Amino acid sequence: MAEITRRADDYSRWYQDVIQAAELADYSPVRGCMVIRPNGYAIWENIQRVLDDRFKELGHVNAYFPLLIPKSFLAREAAHVEGFAKECAIVTHSRLKTVLVDGKTTVVPDPESRLEEELIIRPTSETVIWDMYRKWIQSYRDLPILINQWANVVRWEMRTRLFLRTTEFLWQEGHTAHATAAEAREEALRMLEVYRWFYEEVMAAPVIAGAKTANERFAGAVETYSVEAMMQDRKALQGATSHDLGQNFARAFDVTFQDAEGARDFVWATSWGLSTRSIGALIMTHSDDNGLVLPPRLAWRKAVVVPIWKNDGEMSATVEAGRALAAALKPVAGVVPVDDRDKLRPGGKYTEWEQRGVPVRFEIGPRDVAAAQCVMVSRHDRKKTPVPLAGAARALADELARIQADLLRLAQGRRESATVRLERWDDFRALYEAEGGFAWCHWCGDGACEARIQEETKVSIRNIPLDREAETGACIRCGRPSAGRVVFAQAY
Amino acid sequence: MAEITRRADDYSRWYQDVIQAAELADYSPVRGCMVIRPNGYAIWENIQRVLDDRFKELGHVNAYFPLLIPKSFLAREAAHVEGFAKECAIVTHSRLKTVLVDGKTTVVPDPESRLEEELIIRPTSETVIWDMYRKWIQSYRDLPILINQWANVVRWEMRTRLFLRTTEFLWQEGHTAHATAAEAREEALRMLEVYRWFYEEVMAAPVIAGAKTANERFAGAVETYSVEAMMQDRKALQGATSHDLGQNFARAFDVTFQDAEGARDFVWATSWGLSTRSIGALIMTHSDDNGLVLPPRLAWRKAVVVPIWKNDGEMSATVEAGRALAAALKPVAGVVPVDDRDKLRPGGKYTEWEQRGVPVRFEIGPRDVAAAQCVMVSRHDRKKTPVPLAGAARALADELARIQADLLRLAQGRRESATVRLERWDDFRALYEAEGGFAWCHWCGDGACEARIQEETKVSIRNIPLDREAETGACIRCGRPSAGRVVFAQAY
Repeated sequence: MAEITRRADDYSRWYQDVIQAAELADYSPVRGCMVIRPNGYAIWENIQRVLDDRFKELGHVNAYFPLLIPKSFLAREAAHVEGFAKECAIVTHSRLKTVLVDGKTTVVPDPESRLEEELIIRPTSETVIWDMYRKWIQSYRDLPILINQWANVVRWEMRTRLFLRTTEFLWQEGHTAHATAAEAREEALRMLEVYRWFYEEVMAAPVIAGAKTANERFAGAVETYSVEAMMQDRKALQGATSHDLGQNFARAFDVTFQDAEGARDFVWATSWGLSTRSIGALIMTHSDDNGLVLPPRLAWRKAVVVPIWKNDGEMSATVEAGRALAAALKPVAGVVPVDDRDKLRPGGKYTEWEQRGVPVRFEIGPRDVAAAQCVMVSRHDRKKTPVPLAGAARALADELARIQADLLRLAQGRRESATVRLERWDDFRALYEAEGGFAWCHWCGDGACEARIQEETKVSIRNIPLDREAETGACIRCGRPSAGRVVFAQAY
Repeated sequence: MAEITRRADDYSRWYQDVIQAAELADYSPVRGCMVIRPNGYAIWENIQRVLDDRFKELGHVNAYFPLLIPKSFLAREAAHVEGFAKECAIVTHSRLKTVLVDGKTTVVPDPESRLEEELIIRPTSETVIWDMYRKWIQSYRDLPILINQWANVVRWEMRTRLFLRTTEFLWQEGHTAHATAAEAREEALRMLEVYRWFYEEVMAAPVIAGAKTANERFAGAVETYSVEAMMQDRKALQGATSHDLGQNFARAFDVTFQDAEGARDFVWATSWGLSTRSIGALIMTHSDDNGLVLPPRLAWRKAVVVPIWKNDGEMSATVEAGRALAAALKPVAGVVPVDDRDKLRPGGKYTEWEQRGVPVRFEIGPRDVAAAQCVMVSRHDRKKTPVPLAGAARALADELARIQADLLRLAQGRRESATVRLERWDDFRALYEAEGGFAWCHWCGDGACEARIQEETKVSIRNIPLDREAETGACIRCGRPSAGRVVFAQAY
């Protein structure tokens, strides 16, 4: 059993401990890269399944584009190369060669295999995809193209953190092409709404959907939207982004189409992505000092059965009853492990399954078997309910629904209690010198003023909420007029 | 509509044309890398779903390991580095820098970002995985580890061909760890059987399961098994491999475990993989001069509805009936497109859907609507069956089963007619100077003799079939004694 640091003692250490105890991921020997262990990858598979189904319902199809991008491609869109040049993995050779160094053989890149043009491991795929779209798009009849890709990307990171910031990460990246600016904008907003739905209804994590400020736009976008969640340390985490790319990439890669009247124009684009970073958000939104807490919809296992016994005779009876129970639960919960390890006490097993975030545990001892019942215990609030064996599957279905709703409600409560509306700069400074949180404040709209606030306080504008009220006011920092509030927070 | 070269005229051109016409894949601007287009990727998704379910039924779980491998890791297993050094992508820098060259700005790798140790893009993941297994395995209680990974890998290829040989490809790689040699051997054979099942029952492609000769073993394996399929040009294609790695990687990465008696030993390993190359095998096994033919279990669309009309009044009636038909077919076939494009004649549509390999087409015209029927046409044999609309779903289910079985039967027939047993070297040479095929011949077991045959004829031993009869004989080349026949062929 792993020790878990308490949140109040060291939040960052707690996060690492939760991941270790649940065996979600591990640091790899490769600087900045992580290993996603089976329990963690199963969460990613659940995320993939839910999102992929939703994308397909909306008419998207999956495809796969190359990992390696010619250096010159990246350079075609000026803002794009500016955004990614400082953090990319560059392939320069295609062969290793054995050489003798100080009497020992070692392998080095073979100088004769130096590439004519260096290749970059994709940090994102706009460039290589838009180069293909030039081949595929001639007429308005070829539009829209609604393609998504599940892939790995690399962005060189100096300070890494499991799931939240790693040199390599997994994600989906949608890349769509449209005949009009309005259609592209609509698509960008539609996918933002998919992410909002996914965070709230599936991850049970409330988010604020809005537009990023110009300073924070994706490299090459005309508008970037995000969903922003609040972690338990009152910091914000950007959960996913959706970009209206205008005609920027079409211009850079010369992708035009002929409309119904025969006129030619550049194609309009969007891109949108959600990554394994979302697992970091998931962990930090719900987990507690006992370890991982997962919403049932994404849990790698929804339930576990722990038989309880004192001697061999009791063991076979309770394990057998436990197996029958697990089989009965399968239609509701999928595979339900039965913890029949004989060298561990029940208490130790409970702790372990709690650390792993399994939402519901069923305990079944000899007296339960005799009474044809078991005890259902919820991970997040430890609520215990005696349940007749015959009604266990139904009880579990109801309990999973209750947990899913409860986790969202609890997270909403935490966010509300850590959200304020501020009018005065002194209050703003005081908030972020103390406990922090989300502050809805007026802002003049000037990027220089935004940058100054960030420099002074390390607090940034998370986004300009789509559903903010129309309300005039004075900028929290400079006092100039503002047309509405934006959301400030410290961020991951 | 695309033109498709006839197989008899130019087999290799035919293969390219089939892929282009069905929009399965495209060459990318990145040397050696392909773009898998939505129709092709949908086949890969079907392959993934079937295999992943099977792996999980057998107790495997998925995980994800880093894309980048330190150069020194590759070098730890001597045969392994020997096998992959000549074809790897080497990352040497982590930053691009803007410089002025001849008055123009350009980006180059920043010399200050030179990595201390070069990283290799994984050509396969044994090394990085076994380095982690050292952390995860202490005792026999930690075994077995049954992990699979879905990932991209890079092996630098000079001569590339869509799906069959590309610098980057997608695959699954299983990596298991066991307490005994027998268990590892059993696992390697179990997964070989999964691949045999997958090729025959799902891909409808008969294969020979067997052991590779020592010359052809995977770099670092003590035994390599393969399934070998026959393409329509009578060449063999290695469909998937499963390796018994013995203790080689455990020794190289110092992975030991304590057994129940307290003794320490190195861990036993397997690895096994199937890649997007299998899509090349799928295309070449079944397709014909009209384009792609797909077995229903892997088809990206199982059926299509083509309404037929002469005027607007007929159009709305047949399109409406077509949509109702497609909805009725959905439980059997998933999404069924209704081809209501109004600028294309039915004949053109038929050709296009045939080129795309959709197994069944339903035609419905005004007279069909009046008679409450439609015509069901199979892609591979063009069999036409009138079907009452009310019974269409049932008829499609039966027809898909017939097609799946028929494609396997046809492929088996082609393989049988291109398979011989040979005793004399002259006959062997004559066969491969003429049409080629599979030749079951005796072989002395000497790698030098095997290499000489390959040098003289470009024909290789595909494998030593697991179910070959015990039969003594004389080596086809040198005449020395042989304990049984092996399968020779030219290979992709």
